[in-house]
Amino acid sequence: MDNRAIGMFDSGIGGITVLKEIKKLLPNEKIIYLGDTKRFPYGSKSKETIIEISRQCVKFLISKNVKLIIIACGTATSQSLDILKKEFNIPIIGIIEPTVKYIKDNINKEKEKIGVIATSGTIKSGQWEKKIKEEVKNVQVINEEAPLLATMAEQGWISNKVAEYTIKEYMKCFKNIDKLILGCTHYPLFEKLIRKELKNNTEIINTGTKLAEFLRRYIEDNDLQNNEKTNEYKILLTDLDNNFNKIAERLLEENLTTKIEKAEI
Amino acid sequence: MDNRAIGMFDSGIGGITVLKEIKKLLPNEKIIYLGDTKRFPYGSKSKETIIEISRQCVKFLISKNVKLIIIACGTATSQSLDILKKEFNIPIIGIIEPTVKYIKDNINKEKEKIGVIATSGTIKSGQWEKKIKEEVKNVQVINEEAPLLATMAEQGWISNKVAEYTIKEYMKCFKNIDKLILGCTHYPLFEKLIRKELKNNTEIINTGTKLAEFLRRYIEDNDLQNNEKTNEYKILLTDLDNNFNKIAERLLEENLTTKIEKAEI
Repeated sequence: MDNRAIGMFDSGIGGITVLKEIKKLLPNEKIIYLGDTKRFPYGSKSKETIIEISRQCVKFLISKNVKLIIIACGTATSQSLDILKKEFNIPIIGIIEPTVKYIKDNINKEKEKIGVIATSGTIKSGQWEKKIKEEVKNVQVINEEAPLLATMAEQGWISNKVAEYTIKEYMKCFKNIDKLILGCTHYPLFEKLIRKELKNNTEIINTGTKLAEFLRRYIEDNDLQNNEKTNEYKILLTDLDNNFNKIAERLLEENLTTKIEKAEI
Repeated sequence: MDNRAIGMFDSGIGGITVLKEIKKLLPNEKIIYLGDTKRFPYGSKSKETIIEISRQCVKFLISKNVKLIIIACGTATSQSLDILKKEFNIPIIGIIEPTVKYIKDNINKEKEKIGVIATSGTIKSGQWEKKIKEEVKNVQVINEEAPLLATMAEQGWISNKVAEYTIKEYMKCFKNIDKLILGCTHYPLFEKLIRKELKNNTEIINTGTKLAEFLRRYIEDNDLQNNEKTNEYKILLTDLDNNFNKIAERLLEENLTTKIEKAEI
């Protein structure tokens, strides 16, 4: 048993899609969510910068006495997870490993075609393709950089004409794939638009769902459950933005039961 | 007389719109253009980062023996120009001063409404509004952050549906203005789409044109003309990208007469 909170961070609002999945599967856990809105977007920053700001987010969450840390951000996972794991003595889970594990266990045919859509930083890091190919033989990975999507989500443009035509453009290379990994936690916001552009039998993988399932097993296996009745969560942002509440509520599909606070990092 | 080249830099391809205007007005000058594509976009980076990378660009151009430096980037101008001017002993001209001077000389009525569209970094710096109000009394400035446009231009999406609807969204607050400043050198790529959304008598100000006019006077006043017959220019990029040639030629409205080289910064 461990009644401390789970800590998680993202560059902004995208990780709320992961928070939602974790709340669903682990309703009895306290969660502290840190959105680094001040330094959003991570996707276009250098690897060195991302490592440094991710390190600061981890230190901040540790200072809040969390029991483990979720990197609910594709870019921070791909660029900094391996390094942070070596530097800190706390369990840190990113968004890549849980999805790769899921794919490994769910390959349905020879030479599956797996699409990955993510920020420029994530795609250039090559982490998705590398980790998938380490676990699955005989698979084809098709990568697509989507430098506009996270920013679009952060401005709340998730169902307007701009979003619609942007998704149409980015989906052109995925017409014939078996699975599509949404490699940035902002992208589930566009899932309906994405669905319209793909073959019916293409599976869309929300990395937040896979992460929540992985986390539930991890907590059980390591006996880290919270044994108090609680479903408390806190949201802290490095830069307060009036828009955040509205979009967060839309993402969570419920009213916020917490006051958003400013995080001084 | 000074036969050395003019140096200029931008975060990527946007400054090519300025290069074009300078080539037109000063056909006898050699130009060295540095596009910092490796670290594009500047618009979402912190002030400290922008100062540091702008400093590196200036040093690089000085090492190429240029006679003066143009910052052909709205974000770098608004965040770093004042500091760089103090640090370096070479004339440095940004995109704000020439346009503010033009506006000062071309106010047509009481309480003109001037729109500024630029990256988040530039708008948050407040530099445009501050510099305009220092020179012009009784003017209203309407600011709009456009976090998507530079990235969209850099991917070559300048006339597709995404660009069209994005411009429609961003122009909503400018329906009733007298002048619109394109505060990022990427934005002249969208000028046709922008024109469609504004009143006929709204003047669209291309900061590159104003900079080229300012530069011509500056060179004459300071006797810095090149007296050799030349119209040579060089383009150096910190990260080579196959797309750049095509977009650069579209921007320049001519075939490139130079081979693009890699700049090691």
